[in-house]
Amino acid sequence: MNQVVVIFGVSGCGKTTIARLLSEKTGLPYFDADDFHPSANIEKMGRGLALDDSDREPWLERLSIKLGEASKEGGAILACSALKEKYRKKLAERANDIHWVYLRGNYELIKKRMSEREGHFMKPGLLRSQFETLEEPDYGIVVNIEDSPQEITEKIIFNLQMKNKSVFGVYGLGVMGRSLALNMADKGFELSVFNRAEGGEQQVVAQFMSENEGYGNIKGFTDLRRFVDSLEQPRRILLMIKAGAVVDQVMEQILPLLSKGDVLIDGGNSHYTDTARRVKRSVAFGVGFIGAGISGGEEGARNGPSIMPGGGQSDYAKVADILEAIAAKDASGKPCCQYIGPEGSGHFVKMVHNGIEYVEMQLLAELYGLLKESMSNEEMADLFESWNRGSLESYLLSITVSILRKKEGESFVLDLILDRAGNKGTGSWSSKAALDLGVVNTMMASAVFERYVSSFKKRRTELASQVPVSQEKESSPDLAALKEAYSFARLINHQQGFELLDAASKEYAWNLDFEVIARIWSNGCIIKSSLMNRLEGYFGQDTDLFSFAEIRDELSRQESSVGQLLDYGLRNRMALSSFSASYYYWINMTTDLLPANLIQAQRDFFGAHTYQRSDDPGGRSHHTDW
Amino acid sequence: MNQVVVIFGVSGCGKTTIARLLSEKTGLPYFDADDFHPSANIEKMGRGLALDDSDREPWLERLSIKLGEASKEGGAILACSALKEKYRKKLAERANDIHWVYLRGNYELIKKRMSEREGHFMKPGLLRSQFETLEEPDYGIVVNIEDSPQEITEKIIFNLQMKNKSVFGVYGLGVMGRSLALNMADKGFELSVFNRAEGGEQQVVAQFMSENEGYGNIKGFTDLRRFVDSLEQPRRILLMIKAGAVVDQVMEQILPLLSKGDVLIDGGNSHYTDTARRVKRSVAFGVGFIGAGISGGEEGARNGPSIMPGGGQSDYAKVADILEAIAAKDASGKPCCQYIGPEGSGHFVKMVHNGIEYVEMQLLAELYGLLKESMSNEEMADLFESWNRGSLESYLLSITVSILRKKEGESFVLDLILDRAGNKGTGSWSSKAALDLGVVNTMMASAVFERYVSSFKKRRTELASQVPVSQEKESSPDLAALKEAYSFARLINHQQGFELLDAASKEYAWNLDFEVIARIWSNGCIIKSSLMNRLEGYFGQDTDLFSFAEIRDELSRQESSVGQLLDYGLRNRMALSSFSASYYYWINMTTDLLPANLIQAQRDFFGAHTYQRSDDPGGRSHHTDW
Repeated sequence: MNQVVVIFGVSGCGKTTIARLLSEKTGLPYFDADDFHPSANIEKMGRGLALDDSDREPWLERLSIKLGEASKEGGAILACSALKEKYRKKLAERANDIHWVYLRGNYELIKKRMSEREGHFMKPGLLRSQFETLEEPDYGIVVNIEDSPQEITEKIIFNLQMKNKSVFGVYGLGVMGRSLALNMADKGFELSVFNRAEGGEQQVVAQFMSENEGYGNIKGFTDLRRFVDSLEQPRRILLMIKAGAVVDQVMEQILPLLSKGDVLIDGGNSHYTDTARRVKRSVAFGVGFIGAGISGGEEGARNGPSIMPGGGQSDYAKVADILEAIAAKDASGKPCCQYIGPEGSGHFVKMVHNGIEYVEMQLLAELYGLLKESMSNEEMADLFESWNRGSLESYLLSITVSILRKKEGESFVLDLILDRAGNKGTGSWSSKAALDLGVVNTMMASAVFERYVSSFKKRRTELASQVPVSQEKESSPDLAALKEAYSFARLINHQQGFELLDAASKEYAWNLDFEVIARIWSNGCIIKSSLMNRLEGYFGQDTDLFSFAEIRDELSRQESSVGQLLDYGLRNRMALSSFSASYYYWINMTTDLLPANLIQAQRDFFGAHTYQRSDDPGGRSHHTDW
Repeated sequence: MNQVVVIFGVSGCGKTTIARLLSEKTGLPYFDADDFHPSANIEKMGRGLALDDSDREPWLERLSIKLGEASKEGGAILACSALKEKYRKKLAERANDIHWVYLRGNYELIKKRMSEREGHFMKPGLLRSQFETLEEPDYGIVVNIEDSPQEITEKIIFNLQMKNKSVFGVYGLGVMGRSLALNMADKGFELSVFNRAEGGEQQVVAQFMSENEGYGNIKGFTDLRRFVDSLEQPRRILLMIKAGAVVDQVMEQILPLLSKGDVLIDGGNSHYTDTARRVKRSVAFGVGFIGAGISGGEEGARNGPSIMPGGGQSDYAKVADILEAIAAKDASGKPCCQYIGPEGSGHFVKMVHNGIEYVEMQLLAELYGLLKESMSNEEMADLFESWNRGSLESYLLSITVSILRKKEGESFVLDLILDRAGNKGTGSWSSKAALDLGVVNTMMASAVFERYVSSFKKRRTELASQVPVSQEKESSPDLAALKEAYSFARLINHQQGFELLDAASKEYAWNLDFEVIARIWSNGCIIKSSLMNRLEGYFGQDTDLFSFAEIRDELSRQESSVGQLLDYGLRNRMALSSFSASYYYWINMTTDLLPANLIQAQRDFFGAHTYQRSDDPGGRSHHTDW
């Protein structure tokens, strides 16, 4: 709700002073009615003639339009004599709820004050005529001008329950921005929200404000400067806009309007290298920049997302209160939001979160593909539901149960969905980061490539009709082995994900705390699961899950089940890429001698790249004249 | 060999004129001996006094040093009176092979010419004294100054077999640069070669020149301007330097020295996006830029590499003669070098070449890993050798045979090599390009990740000791199935590689010709094989190997052998990542219904990403309120 306040009273009662003070305190813009006279009026007054009511008509019309706009966006304070009831009626024509503040004082006091004002000249009789014209209202707030301007302002704020400047700004009212803003408003923060009113977004702010009229603590803006001015300093602004070049464009618009010490937060899925660059760019303006990964989708944003903030630690300290207030809470009630590290580390962690998510989804898809030959959707839902009651519990497993059960008339919705998976790039980013960092990221890569291969739907259908399949399918897999294999693959997925974090942490000296990250991921995000809760405990002791005998024993015990599952896949002509990646990774990492010596020999043969020898512990380079 | 020529004779015989003309024709720098007098001599001559032999001593010493340097680098032409035999002996002290050119003319002629020269003043008696001092040589070339300067110059060039300006320059004398330069020299091209004389590279040019004295058509330089000036226009310079920022640095040094129409060639493994940028950068100087992938290692560079040139087609036309002359020849005798396409397409194709190479090596490593449990190195060499006589013939298979047989004393070298594979990034680049282009690149990615996993040698050894393996190993795989599986995986590898090229060709509108690329790859490069020859035939008809019934039938027939191999791997606890990737890719591409519908359902569930439906051929986006 945007507050519109009209401060009125006779000339010399102090309207402008009070309006200005009130504006400073509340962040609402103020206007002086005198600035809205049409040129004819200005000319007439310049000739020393008094205005009559017909002169006032277009002027009041203008002010009415202004107040109407302000009631829809940003609110406003107007200083205006508004002596007659009919003037006030006119002013109120377009704004819903005008708060009227009448500055009352007697003739003698005002006359004395006016005569004391330096350089102020008043025609004799003018003040008297004002008092004659004045129709005192029987509504609104009445303040006594004998009080000090500060007292008067405090009184108005108290009476109108007016808010001071907003403590936080949200730039961008897309699905995520809207949801986060309402989440913040629910927590009682005074908010300013902004969306551009261009292209198809003319009505975004107006619609958001009208849909959420019940919130008294949100101010809406489409003017960037007014949005910025409405914020208490140091200003804190969350950008919720499309990742990519748009973020740079918006930064270049907003940075010049900010002051030293203000903080921008990028809550989108920006690439971590872009974020590192933007942190530096903001420093040039003395502005802090926090790259915050936010997971949980619309639902999480509205009710408690998982937040991964990176950037300057002192900048984070300035925004921690609100980010932690809106975040999901972990099992012990602590917010799933904690400082991650410098530069783009927050967005890196979010990227890896999405990579883990890709794999978790792909594993479920592979299980589904494997089981649907021998089970109905509902049977599979029952099976998964029983798993979800135990150690395999996860958000993604639980929604898979719901998906398997969902019907549209007689049909299962799932059966109607085309098998062409989309992607928005963060999975691919994870794999590319792993390739750059020399990290073994086979599961994420496999999940990304499986999405890609699914996208060649037409070609697949064509080839399927051209390639005869003689292989006989088997009846059904061993469900107990399946469950163990799933548990195994999820553990490896998390290990690979955290290994990627570990490599980045070392490469960029981020000093990431895995216990914190697992805790942040334990609620609010798409990959929350009871496994994540369990990992939090391990990561308090070591960053490498394989260093725990318990984990090694578990994987070692389950290994043969994965082999059995892969074998079943082979016998039934089903690609189990992510399961296979998990298995091979485990096998490789627990194998002393790999055949990579042949590769080194080949490289030395054709390119003289040299090799190390197992009989030379000094690690020197050797070359053979083959 | 660097030619050093001294043009001598009495004052006024035309030494400077001839030296300058000769320099213009040959590109050799010329010097005037008069410019090398020590200051004491200059002073003495300024006072009108004649120099005596002791004055001449330090001057001749200086010239001798200069000629010595020139004989080591770049060659030179010196115009110097050198009237006495002892002066000439002194000059020759440091240079190996000075060519002496004596300009002979009689007193009357020279006197007449000198008196005709405008502004030229000669003390009476000076010319006479010169003739008195002159000791005519009984060696070298004697020319008659009655001939025109052009005739004299032609005669000297003919007699000394002097070369005109070089037609080609090679910048950088590392292993590849040296080998390519000698390859060019063998083909009879006049070459200039350059290497900086900094850091540890002080002697690179001198050493190269002295090691290759037999070549009369190579000039060596360490001065960049002289190197550039030694080239015929339009200049053509091949950069053989480390890929990365160094290329940009060298470009910024060399571009200002070039003229419009000159062409730079980058023969290193530059990233294709860097090459595209450099093509644009060079345009600003009116200089062409060709990014040429060169494969074949040292041996290929020396005797015939495979070359993949990309950039402007008209720029390529300027360098085609020499690149095609030094390239390997295909089965029909055509050079394995042909214009690839614009921008960085040449380097992109080279990058994919290396990706295919990674996989070919990894497949052999997996076979080796699988077989070494049941076969000796020599038995395996025999097996591979028999394969190499048939349709599986390839360069990499053949060197693997040699590697398996290579012994060092009683030990096989291969057994001594540490199983930690290195990499130089191009495999990882291929995978990243595939991730960007939405291409399924599972085999290259698997080969890269297998190298990465091998690098964690210490951790693997440690884990291997901590994880008990109970699985019993089987005796030996079915060799016939193994051979079929290998054939299958290689075909899929090439299909995936060319799919990556296809995607890039479409994305960047490069219009790549696969028939040309397979032909270029049929000889000179690391992935040459009889399969490549076969593919050339297919690619003349279609870019997609799967569109050929013959290929589909072959893969379909071999499919079960791969399954059998993978199964053997599972039963023997061996990771067969690249074989597995080839198998799953084939299975996926020939499967109509993949389980990706579940992924789309999940994405729509938590992120409202929408999905397409199989019952809506319009491809519209649907959303379910789950």
